[in-house]
Amino acid sequence: MKDFFIADAPEFENAVVTSYFVLSSLQIRERRQGGGQFLSVTLIDKTGSMPAVMWDDFSDSIAACSEGCYVKVQGQINRYQNKFQMSLQRLRFAAESEIDPADYLPVTQFNVDEMWEELRGYVSRFANTDLQRLVFAFLDDPEIAAAYRNAPAAKLLHHAWIGGLLEHVVTLVRVCVTIAPFYPEVDPDLLVTGAILHDVGKIRELYWKSSFGYTLEGQLIGHINIAQGMLVEKVRELQPFPEELRILVQHMILSHHGKYEFGSPKLPMTPEALLLNVLDDLEAKMQTLRNAFANAKIQGKGSDEVTDWVRSMERPLFNSQNYLKKEQE
Amino acid sequence: MKDFFIADAPEFENAVVTSYFVLSSLQIRERRQGGGQFLSVTLIDKTGSMPAVMWDDFSDSIAACSEGCYVKVQGQINRYQNKFQMSLQRLRFAAESEIDPADYLPVTQFNVDEMWEELRGYVSRFANTDLQRLVFAFLDDPEIAAAYRNAPAAKLLHHAWIGGLLEHVVTLVRVCVTIAPFYPEVDPDLLVTGAILHDVGKIRELYWKSSFGYTLEGQLIGHINIAQGMLVEKVRELQPFPEELRILVQHMILSHHGKYEFGSPKLPMTPEALLLNVLDDLEAKMQTLRNAFANAKIQGKGSDEVTDWVRSMERPLFNSQNYLKKEQE
Amino acid sequence: MKDFFIADAPEFENAVVTSYFVLSSLQIRERRQGGGQFLSVTLIDKTGSMPAVMWDDFSDSIAACSEGCYVKVQGQINRYQNKFQMSLQRLRFAAESEIDPADYLPVTQFNVDEMWEELRGYVSRFANTDLQRLVFAFLDDPEIAAAYRNAPAAKLLHHAWIGGLLEHVVTLVRVCVTIAPFYPEVDPDLLVTGAILHDVGKIRELYWKSSFGYTLEGQLIGHINIAQGMLVEKVRELQPFPEELRILVQHMILSHHGKYEFGSPKLPMTPEALLLNVLDDLEAKMQTLRNAFANAKIQGKGSDEVTDWVRSMERPLFNSQNYLKKEQE
Amino acid sequence: MKDFFIADAPEFENAVVTSYFVLSSLQIRERRQGGGQFLSVTLIDKTGSMPAVMWDDFSDSIAACSEGCYVKVQGQINRYQNKFQMSLQRLRFAAESEIDPADYLPVTQFNVDEMWEELRGYVSRFANTDLQRLVFAFLDDPEIAAAYRNAPAAKLLHHAWIGGLLEHVVTLVRVCVTIAPFYPEVDPDLLVTGAILHDVGKIRELYWKSSFGYTLEGQLIGHINIAQGMLVEKVRELQPFPEELRILVQHMILSHHGKYEFGSPKLPMTPEALLLNVLDDLEAKMQTLRNAFANAKIQGKGSDEVTDWVRSMERPLFNSQNYLKKEQE
Amino acid sequence: MKDFFIADAPEFENAVVTSYFVLSSLQIRERRQGGGQFLSVTLIDKTGSMPAVMWDDFSDSIAACSEGCYVKVQGQINRYQNKFQMSLQRLRFAAESEIDPADYLPVTQFNVDEMWEELRGYVSRFANTDLQRLVFAFLDDPEIAAAYRNAPAAKLLHHAWIGGLLEHVVTLVRVCVTIAPFYPEVDPDLLVTGAILHDVGKIRELYWKSSFGYTLEGQLIGHINIAQGMLVEKVRELQPFPEELRILVQHMILSHHGKYEFGSPKLPMTPEALLLNVLDDLEAKMQTLRNAFANAKIQGKGSDEVTDWVRSMERPLFNSQNYLKKEQE
Amino acid sequence: MKDFFIADAPEFENAVVTSYFVLSSLQIRERRQGGGQFLSVTLIDKTGSMPAVMWDDFSDSIAACSEGCYVKVQGQINRYQNKFQMSLQRLRFAAESEIDPADYLPVTQFNVDEMWEELRGYVSRFANTDLQRLVFAFLDDPEIAAAYRNAPAAKLLHHAWIGGLLEHVVTLVRVCVTIAPFYPEVDPDLLVTGAILHDVGKIRELYWKSSFGYTLEGQLIGHINIAQGMLVEKVRELQPFPEELRILVQHMILSHHGKYEFGSPKLPMTPEALLLNVLDDLEAKMQTLRNAFANAKIQGKGSDEVTDWVRSMERPLFNSQNYLKKEQE
Repeated sequence: MKDFFIADAPEFENAVVTSYFVLSSLQIRERRQGGGQFLSVTLIDKTGSMPAVMWDDFSDSIAACSEGCYVKVQGQINRYQNKFQMSLQRLRFAAESEIDPADYLPVTQFNVDEMWEELRGYVSRFANTDLQRLVFAFLDDPEIAAAYRNAPAAKLLHHAWIGGLLEHVVTLVRVCVTIAPFYPEVDPDLLVTGAILHDVGKIRELYWKSSFGYTLEGQLIGHINIAQGMLVEKVRELQPFPEELRILVQHMILSHHGKYEFGSPKLPMTPEALLLNVLDDLEAKMQTLRNAFANAKIQGKGSDEVTDWVRSMERPLFNSQNYLKKEQE
Repeated sequence: MKDFFIADAPEFENAVVTSYFVLSSLQIRERRQGGGQFLSVTLIDKTGSMPAVMWDDFSDSIAACSEGCYVKVQGQINRYQNKFQMSLQRLRFAAESEIDPADYLPVTQFNVDEMWEELRGYVSRFANTDLQRLVFAFLDDPEIAAAYRNAPAAKLLHHAWIGGLLEHVVTLVRVCVTIAPFYPEVDPDLLVTGAILHDVGKIRELYWKSSFGYTLEGQLIGHINIAQGMLVEKVRELQPFPEELRILVQHMILSHHGKYEFGSPKLPMTPEALLLNVLDDLEAKMQTLRNAFANAKIQGKGSDEVTDWVRSMERPLFNSQNYLKKEQE
Repeated sequence: MKDFFIADAPEFENAVVTSYFVLSSLQIRERRQGGGQFLSVTLIDKTGSMPAVMWDDFSDSIAACSEGCYVKVQGQINRYQNKFQMSLQRLRFAAESEIDPADYLPVTQFNVDEMWEELRGYVSRFANTDLQRLVFAFLDDPEIAAAYRNAPAAKLLHHAWIGGLLEHVVTLVRVCVTIAPFYPEVDPDLLVTGAILHDVGKIRELYWKSSFGYTLEGQLIGHINIAQGMLVEKVRELQPFPEELRILVQHMILSHHGKYEFGSPKLPMTPEALLLNVLDDLEAKMQTLRNAFANAKIQGKGSDEVTDWVRSMERPLFNSQNYLKKEQE
Repeated sequence: MKDFFIADAPEFENAVVTSYFVLSSLQIRERRQGGGQFLSVTLIDKTGSMPAVMWDDFSDSIAACSEGCYVKVQGQINRYQNKFQMSLQRLRFAAESEIDPADYLPVTQFNVDEMWEELRGYVSRFANTDLQRLVFAFLDDPEIAAAYRNAPAAKLLHHAWIGGLLEHVVTLVRVCVTIAPFYPEVDPDLLVTGAILHDVGKIRELYWKSSFGYTLEGQLIGHINIAQGMLVEKVRELQPFPEELRILVQHMILSHHGKYEFGSPKLPMTPEALLLNVLDDLEAKMQTLRNAFANAKIQGKGSDEVTDWVRSMERPLFNSQNYLKKEQE
Repeated sequence: MKDFFIADAPEFENAVVTSYFVLSSLQIRERRQGGGQFLSVTLIDKTGSMPAVMWDDFSDSIAACSEGCYVKVQGQINRYQNKFQMSLQRLRFAAESEIDPADYLPVTQFNVDEMWEELRGYVSRFANTDLQRLVFAFLDDPEIAAAYRNAPAAKLLHHAWIGGLLEHVVTLVRVCVTIAPFYPEVDPDLLVTGAILHDVGKIRELYWKSSFGYTLEGQLIGHINIAQGMLVEKVRELQPFPEELRILVQHMILSHHGKYEFGSPKLPMTPEALLLNVLDDLEAKMQTLRNAFANAKIQGKGSDEVTDWVRSMERPLFNSQNYLKKEQE
Repeated sequence: MKDFFIADAPEFENAVVTSYFVLSSLQIRERRQGGGQFLSVTLIDKTGSMPAVMWDDFSDSIAACSEGCYVKVQGQINRYQNKFQMSLQRLRFAAESEIDPADYLPVTQFNVDEMWEELRGYVSRFANTDLQRLVFAFLDDPEIAAAYRNAPAAKLLHHAWIGGLLEHVVTLVRVCVTIAPFYPEVDPDLLVTGAILHDVGKIRELYWKSSFGYTLEGQLIGHINIAQGMLVEKVRELQPFPEELRILVQHMILSHHGKYEFGSPKLPMTPEALLLNVLDDLEAKMQTLRNAFANAKIQGKGSDEVTDWVRSMERPLFNSQNYLKKEQE
């Protein structure tokens, strides 16, 4: 049980605490003036990160540890140059049985059960029963469901937190069902099917145990192609299943990144594939804006200053609402 | 008064008709076997085009004519290889006073007054009175209003018809007001202002008298920059006007094509500019799909065939709804 | 039974022949001087194409025909401007039961059975029995085998003939087994597995009945992704199958085009994937050279002239051997 | 009054001086071994920059200061590792009334009044009186003139100093008037008008108070589009003004960067626009060469060595004159 | 001796003339209604081109002819649809001994001897005697001089006429010597050396006998690399020659196209190479403008219309002088 | 004579050694707490690099030294944080006469004489005696031979060691002679000639005295163009020599990088040029893989982890053999 979190540090200044963390970096360093070695580590949990040092007798402590493992530590919280750090008295490897992973990784701020039910609700209202069978074959598969409810949507950047994939998909589906009626060329059930399945390959592309990263399959195959393989398998289980629907759903998955250089082996050719690509991309960009604006706030930028250069968009961004509010004050 | 239209030809087979047209091409050609010259022209009105020939005494007839001018003709409607053509007895230059231009150019199928009122309705509900003043300064300018209600949205391609600009904008604004609530970073009044003004420069970029084309200012300056100049002038007339709003609206106009290579000198940096660019681009692409699907139908393509290669999108397209319908029959 | 082929025309000048063809184009045209209509068609078989006309009473003849169907015709062979054409007396739709498709499409000049045995021979010598099981699962699948032995490798361009896929693969495998020993990083069995399976999706991407073309699945999914789905299914049938081999083979299929813009969603990351991409690309380029040189010969170009511009390679090419031979004479 | 400049340090080694500077960086740092905090700042004026430290009682000193503000300091000049630094005894915020901004920013080495007169001289010799009226409407506008005479031409890189814009323009105009006679397609008055007005938007794109940077309008609108708005306003004031000249001048402004990706929404289409783009670009590149050569000299590079990689030109550069001179010695 | 030129046709309407031409196309065609074959050719000389037909007995006439050869013909000049053509009575192959090539290819309108002396004049005023020796080694080489004075500068496009290379170089050198003083980094002798030698490889890249085209060496090696080889050979003949000058001149030749994709294997790194590239490119672009303006005039375009799309510049162009003149009338 | 190498340090811990090194960096630094200055250098030889410090009296020692020069030092080997360093007692400039350069630069692990003989062997078996004469004219030129046997193939990256050029060429030629028979369009002697000469310009592009780097000629001209010049000179010496072979060999040299942006002024147009480009590129990529795999091993990466991002290939790589081996254990 973890009852001290890094965000609690201000209330524990100078106190000695005992808790569990992920060891996100580990270095043995030389003390000044030939004073021997000491241990310098970084501890993280879902609320943030904190540096820590251990001055003596740390060899046995770290014997079983490596970067990314869980540790149990005891130490005193100090403030140094207005930042908190910990002086460790004890540190040891912690088994997964002692751990609730949810304590260590950032988590969606929304209710996973509610989002899950919302998602199932859209599917239960499908007019097209074949697509309904198909999507429920994914959502009712216990292994897929467990992963889908927990997976982040990315290693870094947008929705990089537990439940991020589900959060991203639910948000996207809401926009899909709202905007579809404006385009009579678009079959709404097909569009929503695409929205729910387009990123399902991320449950095998990413891992989210103690930290986020890419699996080997993620690196060599990628989530688009993993999802495609999952679709082929599900369709085979559902036989008979209309071949034309299989092709149209597969096309949406393959083309949802919209450009060859983003890893889509096909460009969107159907109205649904095109709309899915545009709305998925819009979600990602809006999330990029939010991150950049939050960052600018942390940096103390003025309301009339642009954000730092945003590499993925090749430009800085600008928080217009904030600017208008400030000017009107 | 024009009372015969090209689309009426089947009802007039072998009859002699008298009517007005635009002369869209004009050639003097040699008859076979040294039989002298004859006149070969193409006549157009808003319902289509028809070839016509005049065998004798055409020199005086065409003295005042050139491609793009209006003509009055008398001739007989014949069918040749299942297509209609006209054997001309008389042809003369027609003055603009004899002409209602609306008869010669394709026109939106929607009611311009209704669209205009719908647009004004959105503005009248703005919470931001400065933006309201600004947009009404455009819409209430008689010269701008007259042009805005008539202009096409393009020379060819999407919305290339009288009223096409207004039709494009109203459709876009509808999607804007529906989708804005999903993105709290977006100021809806600012977004709608951008949607109404982004293409206003087209009223000087294009001409739409007897046919559609680019003005010299359209070629050398372009609608993005024309719109910008119009904004600068309107803002000057409205002084005092908040500088920050001027900058944000100007930024939306400048960046609405989304990429440098599409003629935008700035990339979208604000949430409103970004959303405007995405939705404007989506409208254009959906219109491209519609055109390609209509074309495929005309070509008699099967429901399981892709369209011809669409150059602007570097791919063929596929009408999924049509395909599903056919497969279910 | 087809006993007259288009290439036989010189021996039949002025004779009346009866035979079967594919109707590759069909037009009804006007005779000069108002003389009524006539039928103008193009007939093809595996040896070439020939224009034909039918002057009278063709309406019933063509009632059941459309472009791409088989027809039985009777007519006279004439020479006109040094080219042969046929004056048709009779023409009718031909059922597939009357037809041996091999007569109508170009066919590899190599022996399919021998190539097939050569291919199986490489696999039977694999040291890695899992890869052996995998490849044989494809080659021993009667449906796949039948298609694999007949499929062309492309609609146009390189190896666009019956048996072209097999011919391309066998040629590629030969180079693979020869060059692999120079690169100790490369596992030869894995490389050959990739070479045999990389294009297997073409058996569903293309159709080759009476003519060559893309299936809808070929257009919307593509052979890379079709092959991937086939692999997923075969691996499921072979369980237990080493996951690591599945990933490495799938990666080779996904990346064999070598660049995103060529439709590969992953770039080659393993030695085998890299080498497969390079050698597959080399095969295609050498075939392009051969075609360009053959074309230049037909055009009567001199030995010191470059070929026409080759669009896929963005340059003209030059037959150096031919040039050296000529210079030495 | 500032009577000690950073470049004077060698003459004041170990002396105590009192002077004003811009505070270009400010950090509070920890002394070694827990010895408390000290203040570490960087001071700049137009002659360079110098680090400074203040060991005690600095809290009040810096209360009103932030990076970019002016300060008055008293301290001792020391040499440390062959570089000068200052040990501060006193530091306080300085009001703008105490300051002559010209002391703090680098300034053109040429005489601004002379350059200004030279520029006006070219205009006064225009044959085209409309263009003359137009350019003088800018140069005689007191607000524009004041800014134009002071503005830098860039934040960093070429002509990043007070008066840099004017210096750049005068140099460019000299080349324009010399080269125009070689190209009879070019109207020299139009060309010089473009040269004088092309960058006038920089007076609002940049700010140059205590340091150089981009304004918000500079970021969201950009100098090309600002200049365009200024032109629209001036032309309106000058009515009647020939529309054709307005369009041609506006086109030159819009297209002077020569490529879409450099922020020009139009490519140069007229002889004047093309020549302006080429000569403006040549000026920038020659300035880049000069900077790179000066840098190489500072780094002590040999006369047969290329400069460091110049990112904007994607290559290193080479000082050929220097090389030839050295080789001949 | 050729005493009738194609441009003389109006004065010879209906007359029978005898003259020499280049046979630029040759076709045997069918007469209408089975009336047998006739010969259809195109005749060119330096003043233009004219179609011609020969109705009878042409087999022997063309036995020795092919496209590109010289012919002697006798025939009658007729006017047909306002264009001239010739009805041939006699036609035969013409030997080169009968021919003055200058009659058949377009020729510079400037005096070659004067241009040549002007060029030599610049060199004779070089301060750098090594560069002087080098350039004269080219200009005094009889074989090079003969070719240099005749070569066109291109197959099509800019300066595609006899003497075009010399004309291009002289024009370029004039601008070089005028502009060099503005850039003190530039060695004028080095710059002019580069201007004179940069395109010298064109004398082997192109052929200009009866028509213009690329040699095989031009296709496989290219004029940049041919020039480089010529430089290497000349430098070897001039030994001792300063190695540093050889490298700097060679660098200018290699880099004068300015971009890799234009066939320059090196980017300009020295001031002289950079300036040479800019001015050479400017010459080419101005020539492109001139051609486009001349073409627009021929097409009868209005003074307020842009030219056709110019592919090499990816834009239409606009003749501003013409526009201003018209507006002022 | 050098009898202590950096790789020997473990056996000499705490011992005092005397040896020669290249001084690859040199800095004078401040001791902590105002304790004066000390010398900090990096010493390298062919086995690696080691930091060293000299605390006192170093001014005279370094008087004649600069980065890149040879030095003789005496000092004690210490271990610090598990790395070795040297405390210097003496250091002085070393003349080249004291030095065997082979001790200081990494060297191929293969026998240079054997590789050289293998190369000559291929040439001696040429059927084409002209190509044989040409290649031997290079290999028998004592100056070229000496350089060719020693030159590295690059400054960094692939084959950056003494003898690397020869090693690269021999490896490439082996693949060439093996693969040529698969492509009957390819003349094997011409291909091997290209393989041997394509990089011969590197002997003047690079220098390899004490360290590797680019010569000025390498920077301004480049090895492709240097090789071309060498070919022109050799061909002139061999006259008479068939012009067609000269052109074909020159074309292979010019085009062997395969793309304009890689510095090839011509794209491969002949079968031999194409194959040379493909195989040369394959060699470079396989070497890149090897380096990346070796690096990953040093970093302690797991067998299921991809390598770091490889910039030249824009992807990470993956050692499939290693992965399969580990999984099978």
